Amino acid sequence: MSQPSGSSISLSISVHCAKPAGMRLSELAEELGARLEGDGEVEISSVAPLEEAGEGDLSFLANPKYKPLLESSRAAAVILGPGQDAGSKNCLRVDNPYAAFVRVLTIFDRRPQPVSGVDERAAVDDSAEIGEGCHIGPYAVVGAGARIGAGSVIHPHVVIYPGAVLGRRCVLHAGAVLRELVELGDGVVLQPGAVVGGDGFGFLPMGDRAPLPIPQIGTVSLGDGVELGANSTVDRAAAGATRLEPGVKIDNLVMIAHGCRIGSNSMIAAQTGLAGSTRLGARVMVGGQVGIGGHLRVGDDAQLAAQCGVMGDLEGGKAYSGTPAVDIGVWRRYAVLLAKLPDLFKMVRRLAKARD
Amino acid sequence: MSQPSGSSISLSISVHCAKPAGMRLSELAEELGARLEGDGEVEISSVAPLEEAGEGDLSFLANPKYKPLLESSRAAAVILGPGQDAGSKNCLRVDNPYAAFVRVLTIFDRRPQPVSGVDERAAVDDSAEIGEGCHIGPYAVVGAGARIGAGSVIHPHVVIYPGAVLGRRCVLHAGAVLRELVELGDGVVLQPGAVVGGDGFGFLPMGDRAPLPIPQIGTVSLGDGVELGANSTVDRAAAGATRLEPGVKIDNLVMIAHGCRIGSNSMIAAQTGLAGSTRLGARVMVGGQVGIGGHLRVGDDAQLAAQCGVMGDLEGGKAYSGTPAVDIGVWRRYAVLLAKLPDLFKMVRRLAKARD
Amino acid sequence: MSQPSGSSISLSISVHCAKPAGMRLSELAEELGARLEGDGEVEISSVAPLEEAGEGDLSFLANPKYKPLLESSRAAAVILGPGQDAGSKNCLRVDNPYAAFVRVLTIFDRRPQPVSGVDERAAVDDSAEIGEGCHIGPYAVVGAGARIGAGSVIHPHVVIYPGAVLGRRCVLHAGAVLRELVELGDGVVLQPGAVVGGDGFGFLPMGDRAPLPIPQIGTVSLGDGVELGANSTVDRAAAGATRLEPGVKIDNLVMIAHGCRIGSNSMIAAQTGLAGSTRLGARVMVGGQVGIGGHLRVGDDAQLAAQCGVMGDLEGGKAYSGTPAVDIGVWRRYAVLLAKLPDLFKMVRRLAKARD
Repeated sequence: MSQPSGSSISLSISVHCAKPAGMRLSELAEELGARLEGDGEVEISSVAPLEEAGEGDLSFLANPKYKPLLESSRAAAVILGPGQDAGSKNCLRVDNPYAAFVRVLTIFDRRPQPVSGVDERAAVDDSAEIGEGCHIGPYAVVGAGARIGAGSVIHPHVVIYPGAVLGRRCVLHAGAVLRELVELGDGVVLQPGAVVGGDGFGFLPMGDRAPLPIPQIGTVSLGDGVELGANSTVDRAAAGATRLEPGVKIDNLVMIAHGCRIGSNSMIAAQTGLAGSTRLGARVMVGGQVGIGGHLRVGDDAQLAAQCGVMGDLEGGKAYSGTPAVDIGVWRRYAVLLAKLPDLFKMVRRLAKARD
Repeated sequence: MSQPSGSSISLSISVHCAKPAGMRLSELAEELGARLEGDGEVEISSVAPLEEAGEGDLSFLANPKYKPLLESSRAAAVILGPGQDAGSKNCLRVDNPYAAFVRVLTIFDRRPQPVSGVDERAAVDDSAEIGEGCHIGPYAVVGAGARIGAGSVIHPHVVIYPGAVLGRRCVLHAGAVLRELVELGDGVVLQPGAVVGGDGFGFLPMGDRAPLPIPQIGTVSLGDGVELGANSTVDRAAAGATRLEPGVKIDNLVMIAHGCRIGSNSMIAAQTGLAGSTRLGARVMVGGQVGIGGHLRVGDDAQLAAQCGVMGDLEGGKAYSGTPAVDIGVWRRYAVLLAKLPDLFKMVRRLAKARD
Repeated sequence: MSQPSGSSISLSISVHCAKPAGMRLSELAEELGARLEGDGEVEISSVAPLEEAGEGDLSFLANPKYKPLLESSRAAAVILGPGQDAGSKNCLRVDNPYAAFVRVLTIFDRRPQPVSGVDERAAVDDSAEIGEGCHIGPYAVVGAGARIGAGSVIHPHVVIYPGAVLGRRCVLHAGAVLRELVELGDGVVLQPGAVVGGDGFGFLPMGDRAPLPIPQIGTVSLGDGVELGANSTVDRAAAGATRLEPGVKIDNLVMIAHGCRIGSNSMIAAQTGLAGSTRLGARVMVGGQVGIGGHLRVGDDAQLAAQCGVMGDLEGGKAYSGTPAVDIGVWRRYAVLLAKLPDLFKMVRRLAKARD
């Protein structure tokens, strides 16, 4: 479907959700299928961590470490799992507190949501196709031949280069950039400043002359449900495509170099970098600030601890740490031994002295 | 105060400061309260490092390491502290050269400054409030219900989502993004591309299905005088707020995850990352490329050396280095011992041989 | 030359290159000066890696590691060097496969290219100068007194602050920002979101008061052919200039702090950071996630392995690794010894026991 003509909307680019101002704790218990302990009449209007919670706030125990905060918290009520002590607090008792917490966040999510329509200040090329029910914000740019699937939200100042293709229900935040011809599946979410399809870093060193740029004529393909964090970058391949399979979730300031392939439902924490043509399997969990060398393979379900440096292929199903990354058990043993190194030196000196 | 109607300004979005073209060294001495040594008639028009300085440039000795450059420098004059040898150079002698240097930079700062006014090409929602004396550049976007305090400068291509609130005299550079509902105090400065309030990286792993996004319904609060470097990111909390207390200064490409809290006047160098819900005390100094795990506490006045990895709570008032981060004295001892490791191996082999 | 008046172009901001749909393998052999082995009549329409290649695709053996993929690949033909076994594949035999690959990528580069003209929605200040044949995309901002050399391409949403100067044939991608007064040579390429001239991170710690900002009144100078990756940042100097000499190539998410100087044709991989006033020589090769401390010198032709941490000056012409970075041979020896540490502990305990 082509761009609706004259479909400018008013300056109001968003409206607040029609969410209830609040609900009674007993209603919330019913909504969550939770057991109510305490005063069901108390009014809940929002969610907050224990320390920040005030009147009307429902809270939660995210981490056993924070248990001492429970009693002093001013929260109106708290979500707890089986066997956790509520003290004097009103409590919603559930089997899976984390799932209940997610449900509650959804209920109280009152962030303004954009409405559908193409702002008259967006620059949508005549040859671009915009699906039904999309929001295209002011000063968004949609290039020649680009296609945006139904129900997508293109925030202000997103730039979509010519020929890029987006699936349905994508959300691109301000400053996100899609370079030419890249392809996004359904439900892809880009946080502000994420860049998809920048030229891969490919140069031939030429000694005293400037390194020769290798044209990066390939593309990027992001599967359904892929999410990229703020200011993360996924480079286009020299040839073929850099591929993130469905469900891959990537945090802020991550670098995925040209020609990488990341298996479905893998998660990569902030500031991690993958060098060119490296492949991660499915459900790989990568901590923050990890570096993975080029042309490597990491198997399904591998776990990489924060800051580790991967210099060789890694088998799936195991956890790794350190630089070069080794089995995390081995790494822990090294860490223990390193701490004992001063003792070792002393012991050896004593032995050497005894021998003399 | 609401948006001035018809307040478009000319295409000239900035003017040059009416700074003097230059001043005599004797005038500058008076301005700085410095003792003049040498020719007070020499004309000073700018500031430059020793190696780059030419005619009319005042220079300085930033680092004792550069002392050999002093004599060969073409600088017209140099700022020196007590006891530093000026050689044949004209000199402004001061007790605190660094403070004098800062003062001189302020005097010779001739960078163009934006003038107040709302450019007609800015997209300011009717319900947004713009304080007196603000500059709103072309193609800046100010969403519904957003509020901008008096005297703030919103450069071109800044996007302020609905409901965001800025104090007075904030400066937001091109491409900075404020997501919905975030709050900035007075005098907050964002370098280009800084992102405040992106969704925190919260997903429930679901095995073979796509990880489930946890709604990030909280916000970000930046205190008075907080500064964020280019392309740095501060994520919104799942519930409650990610908080940077007044005076926190953050360099480029830094990642502050959801739910973190950073105490007043702490400084964080480039490419450092804090995982979720971690707390730094006041006046903490963090080097570049440091990684700090989630749900940790670092005490007031702690110092973290570049590239270290923090895996547990750290007491305040001490310096740390290494991964895992340990007391910097301990770390230095390890470094010395590691360098001696080859000798240790030799010594042990000799002992073993002797025993056989 | 000043801004062409009324030079708005149509909404089509780009056209597809008039590249041939394909060519016969024999034609391609002639074009490349390659020896044809196999069927010269086969039609080649694109380039792809072995695993992704299909009918009509020419492929290549980027890495000996991928040799097993050659036979199973569906590529129509493959580029090979002397002595590499083509199996049953059609083959273009060349002396330098990598150079041939680059040539082939250039031939089949069909990415849409922008046409010259200033979009009517660009905000070009009256006092800015735009050279002949430039493309200025929608919502690009060109400030007062800025100058853009002939043949440059300024994509949508680029912001050029007042007084910035660009050479000829520069390419600035969406979201790139040039702060005031920075200078770019000819042929400079900025990937999306790259920031040039953000304020250097200079603050005087003031104890309980907010750190005092040191005005960063200097600039940035990027030499001919410099390229910056997506979301990389090069800060302006406090005084003088941060300088990247001609031919420097920088990957994504790299941080170059204020006052650095990088010698010609050096290459820096992703997520590396240089602290203030550090100098690299010419042709230095820096891996990803490297950290280099402030006020250091690294000599010409040095090579720094990924993730290393440089804490002192390094001689040119050598390779380094580790934190603190040491000669890579020494580092490898440490790595070997660390792996033997458990054995060493056992051995020493045995010796100690024997002595008792």
